[in-house]
Amino acid sequence: MQKINNYIATHKTRFINELIQLLKIPSISADTAFSKDVIETAKIVQESLKDAGCDNTEICETKGYPVVYGEKIIDPKLPTVLVYGHYDVQPPDPMELWTSPPFEPVIKKTDLHPEGAIFARGACDDKGQMYMHVKALEFMVKTDQLPCNVKFMIEGEEEVGSDSLGEFLEANKEKFSNDIILISDTGIMANDVPSITTGLRGLSYVEVEVTGPNRDLHSGIYGGAVPNPINVLNKMIASLHDDNNHITIPGFYDKVEEVSDEERAEMAKAPFHLEEYKKALDINDVQGEKGYSTSERYSIRPTLDVNGIWGGYTGEGAKTVIASKAYAKISMRLVPDQDPDEITELFTKHFEAIAPKSVKVKVTPHHGGLPYVTNMDSIGYKAAAKAYEITFGKTPVPERTGGSIPIVALFEQVLKSKTILMGFGLDSDAIHSPNEHFGVWNYLKGIETIPYFYKYFTEMNS
Amino acid sequence: MQKINNYIATHKTRFINELIQLLKIPSISADTAFSKDVIETAKIVQESLKDAGCDNTEICETKGYPVVYGEKIIDPKLPTVLVYGHYDVQPPDPMELWTSPPFEPVIKKTDLHPEGAIFARGACDDKGQMYMHVKALEFMVKTDQLPCNVKFMIEGEEEVGSDSLGEFLEANKEKFSNDIILISDTGIMANDVPSITTGLRGLSYVEVEVTGPNRDLHSGIYGGAVPNPINVLNKMIASLHDDNNHITIPGFYDKVEEVSDEERAEMAKAPFHLEEYKKALDINDVQGEKGYSTSERYSIRPTLDVNGIWGGYTGEGAKTVIASKAYAKISMRLVPDQDPDEITELFTKHFEAIAPKSVKVKVTPHHGGLPYVTNMDSIGYKAAAKAYEITFGKTPVPERTGGSIPIVALFEQVLKSKTILMGFGLDSDAIHSPNEHFGVWNYLKGIETIPYFYKYFTEMNS
Repeated sequence: MQKINNYIATHKTRFINELIQLLKIPSISADTAFSKDVIETAKIVQESLKDAGCDNTEICETKGYPVVYGEKIIDPKLPTVLVYGHYDVQPPDPMELWTSPPFEPVIKKTDLHPEGAIFARGACDDKGQMYMHVKALEFMVKTDQLPCNVKFMIEGEEEVGSDSLGEFLEANKEKFSNDIILISDTGIMANDVPSITTGLRGLSYVEVEVTGPNRDLHSGIYGGAVPNPINVLNKMIASLHDDNNHITIPGFYDKVEEVSDEERAEMAKAPFHLEEYKKALDINDVQGEKGYSTSERYSIRPTLDVNGIWGGYTGEGAKTVIASKAYAKISMRLVPDQDPDEITELFTKHFEAIAPKSVKVKVTPHHGGLPYVTNMDSIGYKAAAKAYEITFGKTPVPERTGGSIPIVALFEQVLKSKTILMGFGLDSDAIHSPNEHFGVWNYLKGIETIPYFYKYFTEMNS
Repeated sequence: MQKINNYIATHKTRFINELIQLLKIPSISADTAFSKDVIETAKIVQESLKDAGCDNTEICETKGYPVVYGEKIIDPKLPTVLVYGHYDVQPPDPMELWTSPPFEPVIKKTDLHPEGAIFARGACDDKGQMYMHVKALEFMVKTDQLPCNVKFMIEGEEEVGSDSLGEFLEANKEKFSNDIILISDTGIMANDVPSITTGLRGLSYVEVEVTGPNRDLHSGIYGGAVPNPINVLNKMIASLHDDNNHITIPGFYDKVEEVSDEERAEMAKAPFHLEEYKKALDINDVQGEKGYSTSERYSIRPTLDVNGIWGGYTGEGAKTVIASKAYAKISMRLVPDQDPDEITELFTKHFEAIAPKSVKVKVTPHHGGLPYVTNMDSIGYKAAAKAYEITFGKTPVPERTGGSIPIVALFEQVLKSKTILMGFGLDSDAIHSPNEHFGVWNYLKGIETIPYFYKYFTEMNS
């Protein structure tokens, strides 16, 4: 790609500052208190697409937060790449664990990012990775090297399950028609070990409420005689895993695709160092389903995790109370061919079934997503692999990862097109956690790599 | 007792208004944000003791909140009654469940309180019941009917375990020397079923912290492979009870005094209606230790209850996170002859022992209290029983209750004197809960009954 490195060298400071401006806005889609900021972010993204060279941009209303659209059609006969990303971010809490405010981006050096990383909520997931595509387009347009058509779909509800997108897509199939979908919302194994995500787990997410007595009670006067909803909830949740960490919900594993020994052997070749993994998380031991390796546990196997729990007195000091209610947020990661709606139903039935007569339980589904697997023989995958080879000097490793991007399965259903996941973040970038960051090197490497995908994908299609 | 009913009839409005003023101050000892209010309350209590006729009052400093002292010594040769109470209150949360603000007292009628009840935090526990003694003294002094000496000890740390009181008592044994201690911080079975509490459970209260990974993690990328501290905490807490709701901590029951079948049969005669009990709490079933009745479960048996639990994302919407830490507040109600320090140690050892290698656990003791049983053959008990007989027209039922008043055991150790628990509240008064209240009838009935105790106790002593 002519002049890509010069172009990045010339504009790198501006590229970084533009991203920093975007990161300053708290576009937290999970919390309605921030809805103004989410909307404002959408407008800024639209502007950036115009500036980068889109001929036509639009803020498309949905039932929820809007989708930002942009396109540059140079020739209808040429293939069209649809870039998907999201401008919303996760809530930043627990705030007290951030070393710098989540929406006041700063660049700090880390062991893995000697050239510095941008610390801010959304730096990696997904504002930073989404913006690489905007800047890659800028380069291709300004230097007359855009080889095909491009469309952008940047949404604002990914962190809350893209609830409005299905209906929106159905109503706009033509507008978003494409030959391949490109998403950067995943990672690479290391800066010297490029990888491409070929599998994603699905998701079922529920909130449960257990009600005991109709009011909080004095634990001395009632303790031992009445159902304590917190103790009951603990028993119920504990019973969802057996001693081998298998999930006990009847039918939960029925549709799980058993990965062949050959494929498991192939995956086992990917570099993974258990001791480093444990050291990085400061844990003395890993924990997971018996019979599977750590990398299998977070990739080809389904899970059940409590993401939040609360009930009773959680303030300072001691209060001898028996709470009336206890709550938990529980998510299940799914693998092919599990269906999120089916799993949510199985969970609900089971959870209600195991509740003792002494309490009332309520299960509220939050959102779900289908699992997804990419075909490595596809032109899309090959073009991406070749792009990484050029810019990293190494063939990327195919990797199945645990994260969910529900939209990927939705695209296949509605738009009938495949998705390539070209991520540039690292597991250690702390997405969804305090001190999320994105390496400056990774940010620029993404901008450098993406145009090659356009080049090879167009060539392989002709 | 001459003119007691006339006196109450004449002054009842003032008695109620004075209590309402006291209830307006949020003297929450568990939350340092309210320390000024706690101190202010102490001063108001001191003033009220002066006004009631104490010759000498004092605000005694302790390592924590002060103790309010007051005395009326009419003749050193006469017996001395020490009145104990507390001016601090429980935190009011969950605020949203209060039908009127916790520190804006209002009088509302209820089914059980047709003459109205004062709704406010502390109305019953213990400002209302403590203030009955102040007004009873006022009556006896103003009408020249105080038959013996009286001392008051009103403390400000009862709701957080009276931590400073032990040391304070040791240093002031002489000042608080007495022949009998009188406390109104318990209840009666019903307004037409007077009862005297003869047994109190002790308390061991701990806070636990379970740490998994060193930071919050994305549940998709790590889920299934790393220890989730919330799931682990749930398993650990669930394991603390077996299927019969026996507590599994080794040695927990070693010192539990087995109550004789005779005594159990005697207790079983006390009126108790399971269906009404369940209906009042809106539960379909009670829950507790196998082999014991509901009233035994909350009186003669020890318990383990989670009073609060928290961890992970508890805000609006969904966040797919694996928390780094999970927390719980756990209290154990103890019976003779369990020792709180021993039980806390047994809990700590066991909790650390059952923690999987993959997590770190920390146990922090909050406070404890020894269990207590009163001798029904004592002069104190007989004087109290006679007082109830006069004002209620019925012999009071001896009752063992679940609540803890750690100070009672401490008094016996340090001051070598016995305590009589003359309570006038009802279980339904929602102490420690939203909408705590205290019946106006009960408040006035207490003021009416207390002077008779002084009368009979003095007579029986002479």
